[in-house]
Amino acid sequence: MGIKVVIVGGGSSYTPELMEGILKRHESFPVEEVVLVDIEDGKEKLDIIGNLASRMIEASGKPIKLSWTLNRREAFVGADYIATQIRVGGLKARAADERIPLSHGFIGQETNGAGGVFKALRTIPVLLDLAKDVHEICPEAWIINFTNPAGIVTEALLKHSPHQKVIGVCNIPYNMKHSIAEILEVKPQAVQIEFVGMNHFVFGQKVLVHGVNRTQEVLDRLCDDRVDYSPANIVNLGWSKTFIESTRLLPNPYHQYYFQTRDVLHKDLQAFQENGTRAEVVQSLEKSLFEIYKNPSLSEKPKELEKRGGAFYSDVACSLMDSIHNNKEDIQTVNTRNDGAIADLPDDAVIEVNCVITKDGPKPIAVGSLPPTIKGITLQMKAFEELVVRAAISGNYNDAYTSLVMNPLVADEKRSKEVLDELLDAHRAHLPQFYGGKENGKQVHAKVY
Amino acid sequence: MGIKVVIVGGGSSYTPELMEGILKRHESFPVEEVVLVDIEDGKEKLDIIGNLASRMIEASGKPIKLSWTLNRREAFVGADYIATQIRVGGLKARAADERIPLSHGFIGQETNGAGGVFKALRTIPVLLDLAKDVHEICPEAWIINFTNPAGIVTEALLKHSPHQKVIGVCNIPYNMKHSIAEILEVKPQAVQIEFVGMNHFVFGQKVLVHGVNRTQEVLDRLCDDRVDYSPANIVNLGWSKTFIESTRLLPNPYHQYYFQTRDVLHKDLQAFQENGTRAEVVQSLEKSLFEIYKNPSLSEKPKELEKRGGAFYSDVACSLMDSIHNNKEDIQTVNTRNDGAIADLPDDAVIEVNCVITKDGPKPIAVGSLPPTIKGITLQMKAFEELVVRAAISGNYNDAYTSLVMNPLVADEKRSKEVLDELLDAHRAHLPQFYGGKENGKQVHAKVY
Amino acid sequence: MGIKVVIVGGGSSYTPELMEGILKRHESFPVEEVVLVDIEDGKEKLDIIGNLASRMIEASGKPIKLSWTLNRREAFVGADYIATQIRVGGLKARAADERIPLSHGFIGQETNGAGGVFKALRTIPVLLDLAKDVHEICPEAWIINFTNPAGIVTEALLKHSPHQKVIGVCNIPYNMKHSIAEILEVKPQAVQIEFVGMNHFVFGQKVLVHGVNRTQEVLDRLCDDRVDYSPANIVNLGWSKTFIESTRLLPNPYHQYYFQTRDVLHKDLQAFQENGTRAEVVQSLEKSLFEIYKNPSLSEKPKELEKRGGAFYSDVACSLMDSIHNNKEDIQTVNTRNDGAIADLPDDAVIEVNCVITKDGPKPIAVGSLPPTIKGITLQMKAFEELVVRAAISGNYNDAYTSLVMNPLVADEKRSKEVLDELLDAHRAHLPQFYGGKENGKQVHAKVY
Amino acid sequence: MGIKVVIVGGGSSYTPELMEGILKRHESFPVEEVVLVDIEDGKEKLDIIGNLASRMIEASGKPIKLSWTLNRREAFVGADYIATQIRVGGLKARAADERIPLSHGFIGQETNGAGGVFKALRTIPVLLDLAKDVHEICPEAWIINFTNPAGIVTEALLKHSPHQKVIGVCNIPYNMKHSIAEILEVKPQAVQIEFVGMNHFVFGQKVLVHGVNRTQEVLDRLCDDRVDYSPANIVNLGWSKTFIESTRLLPNPYHQYYFQTRDVLHKDLQAFQENGTRAEVVQSLEKSLFEIYKNPSLSEKPKELEKRGGAFYSDVACSLMDSIHNNKEDIQTVNTRNDGAIADLPDDAVIEVNCVITKDGPKPIAVGSLPPTIKGITLQMKAFEELVVRAAISGNYNDAYTSLVMNPLVADEKRSKEVLDELLDAHRAHLPQFYGGKENGKQVHAKVY
Repeated sequence: MGIKVVIVGGGSSYTPELMEGILKRHESFPVEEVVLVDIEDGKEKLDIIGNLASRMIEASGKPIKLSWTLNRREAFVGADYIATQIRVGGLKARAADERIPLSHGFIGQETNGAGGVFKALRTIPVLLDLAKDVHEICPEAWIINFTNPAGIVTEALLKHSPHQKVIGVCNIPYNMKHSIAEILEVKPQAVQIEFVGMNHFVFGQKVLVHGVNRTQEVLDRLCDDRVDYSPANIVNLGWSKTFIESTRLLPNPYHQYYFQTRDVLHKDLQAFQENGTRAEVVQSLEKSLFEIYKNPSLSEKPKELEKRGGAFYSDVACSLMDSIHNNKEDIQTVNTRNDGAIADLPDDAVIEVNCVITKDGPKPIAVGSLPPTIKGITLQMKAFEELVVRAAISGNYNDAYTSLVMNPLVADEKRSKEVLDELLDAHRAHLPQFYGGKENGKQVHAKVY
Repeated sequence: MGIKVVIVGGGSSYTPELMEGILKRHESFPVEEVVLVDIEDGKEKLDIIGNLASRMIEASGKPIKLSWTLNRREAFVGADYIATQIRVGGLKARAADERIPLSHGFIGQETNGAGGVFKALRTIPVLLDLAKDVHEICPEAWIINFTNPAGIVTEALLKHSPHQKVIGVCNIPYNMKHSIAEILEVKPQAVQIEFVGMNHFVFGQKVLVHGVNRTQEVLDRLCDDRVDYSPANIVNLGWSKTFIESTRLLPNPYHQYYFQTRDVLHKDLQAFQENGTRAEVVQSLEKSLFEIYKNPSLSEKPKELEKRGGAFYSDVACSLMDSIHNNKEDIQTVNTRNDGAIADLPDDAVIEVNCVITKDGPKPIAVGSLPPTIKGITLQMKAFEELVVRAAISGNYNDAYTSLVMNPLVADEKRSKEVLDELLDAHRAHLPQFYGGKENGKQVHAKVY
Repeated sequence: MGIKVVIVGGGSSYTPELMEGILKRHESFPVEEVVLVDIEDGKEKLDIIGNLASRMIEASGKPIKLSWTLNRREAFVGADYIATQIRVGGLKARAADERIPLSHGFIGQETNGAGGVFKALRTIPVLLDLAKDVHEICPEAWIINFTNPAGIVTEALLKHSPHQKVIGVCNIPYNMKHSIAEILEVKPQAVQIEFVGMNHFVFGQKVLVHGVNRTQEVLDRLCDDRVDYSPANIVNLGWSKTFIESTRLLPNPYHQYYFQTRDVLHKDLQAFQENGTRAEVVQSLEKSLFEIYKNPSLSEKPKELEKRGGAFYSDVACSLMDSIHNNKEDIQTVNTRNDGAIADLPDDAVIEVNCVITKDGPKPIAVGSLPPTIKGITLQMKAFEELVVRAAISGNYNDAYTSLVMNPLVADEKRSKEVLDELLDAHRAHLPQFYGGKENGKQVHAKVY
Repeated sequence: MGIKVVIVGGGSSYTPELMEGILKRHESFPVEEVVLVDIEDGKEKLDIIGNLASRMIEASGKPIKLSWTLNRREAFVGADYIATQIRVGGLKARAADERIPLSHGFIGQETNGAGGVFKALRTIPVLLDLAKDVHEICPEAWIINFTNPAGIVTEALLKHSPHQKVIGVCNIPYNMKHSIAEILEVKPQAVQIEFVGMNHFVFGQKVLVHGVNRTQEVLDRLCDDRVDYSPANIVNLGWSKTFIESTRLLPNPYHQYYFQTRDVLHKDLQAFQENGTRAEVVQSLEKSLFEIYKNPSLSEKPKELEKRGGAFYSDVACSLMDSIHNNKEDIQTVNTRNDGAIADLPDDAVIEVNCVITKDGPKPIAVGSLPPTIKGITLQMKAFEELVVRAAISGNYNDAYTSLVMNPLVADEKRSKEVLDELLDAHRAHLPQFYGGKENGKQVHAKVY
């Protein structure tokens, strides 16, 4: 009995990578059926991707059945894995998440600050609904969620969905591991980084190569060489020797938003004036990607895809499904329930942590208490994430406000309200919990302001 | 057997207020002897204050013995209470704490941000040394510490001194209580505010009048009227209705640094360009105060003193000593060991909290878990304070750096170093733990940078 | 506007004491109306008590309206304080709680071990129901619960009732305070004992007289003199010098069940063979008490009442109501929500702790972490109490079993079941949650075994 | 460069098993040198074992260098793994640990109750001393400790030794896994049990076969069949269906001491009257074992060894060393620092838990909060263990007393002292921390009583 994988957001430009991952693992992870699902608005892209994926399968010679559909519930029948890579409101919504905070002098970014809050507020209801369907139709299936902010979204699902087989994934830990391997000139499989923290706020606190501690060497190299393990979408500003030596931790690329705020803001405002928001840059990137995808002679993932930030998402997701399927008990870094792994955080917090991957799900490896240097900011970020989840569920204006004002990238009691009001308005169509549904356009939960 | 009170930093312009407090409580708190202590540099001021205090006692007709001295250890013999109100480095040091951060675009303030860190780094070794003397010479005496940052300093003493009879006091909770009483048109004694947090980062979460909950009414008034319970040294910018309604908490005046950062910075930079640092303003204020103090016909606390920020410090400190002496078991808000009173913070953290005041010391009243809205930022601030205490003890450059970079008002990994280096240099004479003593000027602990 | 007090279980032999307490406090706590409530089965006793109380009021000359009734809901209208002193199943049920465990070789006691578990299982549903009525009819009223096991019952109410104005009281801390005062030859009001733990499992860890620490002296006296602060119903076996010196804590009389188990069991089995259960002794005591109460010339609490174990309950309860009414902010030891006061226990655990008593309820004074010597057993007892509350709510057979097997006085996996089955059967009429109501006698929740 | 293994307590009857384990793993774990170390008193046995081990190596044909010595420090030079299987005071001491408690009506057992406390008190100073040597001579070596009570001893080492490369092992989890595999008729390698708790107090809370949850099936079988996964030294009394169904946990064989105390005590007292203590039984068992070992034609582990309780210790220890050496990242159950893996226990507590075994040591897999049913007893046992460690270090009489009186198998404030005094006296020669060294026989720390 073969494996059925459903890709929700199947019309995404990332799907070819995921297909490639499935194809190249066919021996150990024998997928029998793939269904791509998308919404009405994404129909055109879905067709392009569907056709490309078909050609890829054909070229590979693997016996995989492929279909694409707008009917999510039908697609779920008999599914084993549901990969979710959706973007509620599309790149247009992302543009608002970036533009509005920037216009008030705050970081405008897809997964951090005010933008990240709103991406969460839009995404959580949709994925909760999806999880309800999964729980009803294919209760044994694992949801592998790539949708950002992956940590917050996974926490919302694990706290509020009856479906508990949910794992959040991100390519950042994977990229860090590969970059470190490159620096140390060893194979990535030989490297383990002990991660501590949350998605997009994770630090590496120990680097082991074949089990031998080489952390000091890596820290030295980070200082000397300004090693860049940023994804394509983040410009690395380099970390100071003092920061690295004082924390003795490996920051991740997103930490620049928190510890280089002023410089990043300056750079982003400049970029915004020159090229518009990152969303708009991506939009044009995507446009040309889809032109390439349409080419009927293309039957593999094109090189151009790597320019997008999500490189290796496919490897992360496919390795995870492979290890679950085969109860491999290998170590992968995913977003899952804390359960004490970081002693200072609540059991039901979702963290990004090394896990033993089993058929029974990921088992987090305990890392003990947070390093004192990052204890404060990590606790704050987690408390902020809890406020976002609360607001996403309640649809309460004040809850949304507190999540903004308590985010270290906003933290301005008057401007928070301005940013909040503009973002609520911009995303009105995708915030039913705040506006009480679209049927009559009448606002229910959201405050008149 | 009468009470002996020693005032360390006796030459401070605040001392007349303290004297007034002692005189007016003489019946319930019969002080027999007061000794004012100061250092060589403060000799002139000490003489002026000593003479004024003499005249105040004489005018009151109370049988109190007064003396002033530069010999701290002699003064401690037989002491019951040691009030500490010192300023290591004087207003000149304060000016650096304000000027240097401002010049890099950060809040430059005496007790918050980078300035607060350095005030702590200078003060902690001096007070630890003082506490060692107290423990040796008058081990039963209580240290009543007003020296800022009062919470951090008290935490350092309770964690690192053999002398454990130490209480930190601040006039902020007292002022908030009095302002609320005024708003509600009741007597201050009828009001209890349930405080939660740390010194200069404390919130009020419940207002009781004669035990009746009137929190909602107070919150409404805070929104409507922009009620000002700021001390004289802080300009109130007003809190938005949304902030008050969303947190449902009473902020304290110092919260503007954290939630109105941009506006405060703008205002402070302007003020700086116009009048120099607050330290310089205070310097000139003090100068005229001391002129007034010199007047041989003055035998009471002059009205002009109230313009300084510390109004009511005297009431706070004298009430506290009175209640300890008489085992009053009344409720006062002081800085003391947490011991679970705020469930989310470590037992050995110092918090600002309502306590039952007994001869056996303050007993904190438990307030349970932090409100979710301020959980994150409060945990971060406490973790930051721990980093400051660590740096003050270790004299380690990297420890000082992490305390700066993890302070939400700095949080810039490159500029933190610049600010740190300039402040270390400016305060070199008062940071023996970083520079290894003054005898040969050779730097021991501090890194060459 | 005067105060209305309702006494539920008004027909109890303790009521005259409570009446005395109300009468003697009339000046500061001006009760205007007292209603005694009881159930059909207690009608005869209620009449006797009602008449005695009437005579007591008349003799006192205080303007208090008295009535007695079987209609609880009517009695609650306009009530300010509800004192609950019920015994579900009466002394007959108590006899089973004592006899059945004893017959299997376990401690058979009203509030500890298997007997305590079943008293809780019978009482919790009745008081939850009562609290629901209170919440509906007189939502501002305080429930002052004396019903044992007072700690567990209070925890159940605070966790599962919408009515949160509930305080549990016990005379043990009061008795300990008074005994210590006697030992030290000081007034009870001068003594504060810092208590730590739960009802019937509370230790004293510090004795202050007028705020001065005299713990060592008390510990010495406890060793030397075998000071007896046991209530009338517990025979003191004396504590060894080693135990007192090693723990440096003041045990309470009920600790003998846990640390002198074998000796107590031996003594209790002997007493059982000679006089039957304690319930039966009490039954005959009560019989003669009620004979005395009937005497129409009696118009005060008779001396004979003190032979019952509950002496001073009245003082405890009336002092509490007085302090709430007058927002006295004095310190009393009651059972209330932990909220961090004992740092190792959950916030929502009910503990027995010194509190500041206000109109807004009791505010626990934080005592920090448990002393290491009693940390283990205290944590176990609290976890056991949580299991009892869970079983009382769920009516689940396995939940009841685990609460028994995890009680240190039972802890026998096979005999636990035997004891459980016999007790379930004996108390069938009073365990609707296990047997699904009485209407058709059909068992719903309880397992067939 | 080959591996050097030192076996401390090399003269133990278990050593042949360990040798067998080393020999059969030679390919993946290429040991080059084995040194057996013992003390003067064990010289004769050491010679017998040394000769047997020589013959075993010869028979195997593996190129392993073997030696035996009384000079521990010399043996440590260049060592990679130190296996510690000592018995301070020998079987004679064990006999006292068993006899003395039994004679007072308490469980007399080697690793539980009063006997376990004294085994810890004797062992901890010796192993701390050994660890100091290791840290000095071969700081990179791992100490693999089998010496009981393995959990407490490991906690003492990790808390008080500079040498942190210490892992405690026990065959109980291994045996449980193998028994479950047998019951389910699958290979042991396919089975993972999620363990929660401490050494000799560990429960299984989930059974996975190839990652598939089969816990319910196992629980059913445990009830039906009274499956016996006890080691040879413990007679299984069978667990009741109600206990298994109510806790939904797999007890380990030692849990009978806690939940079947009365029956075990009865059985043990009977066995004691018939055959003397277990120590004496073992003594005669050992005698005949050593007779067999002497046989110069024996060159393999004899079958008779399995009658001792420690079967499979070898597999546990050798698998562990193999996985460390090869950085296998497989899952094994060992005793290591908690670090949050069980959220309710302190970070620095030692627990018995599934770990990923790496060259950098064991990494515990987080299991979250304790199941509510066993939360209380587990917390108590851990707090008890902390008291034992404290007493072992302090040599303080009162500390030893509290560890006894707070053990659930003793818990008698008067008899604890009697048992304590007799055990202190019996083990005087091996309790230097209590008696201040042997040189002059003068007691230093232990109280005169």
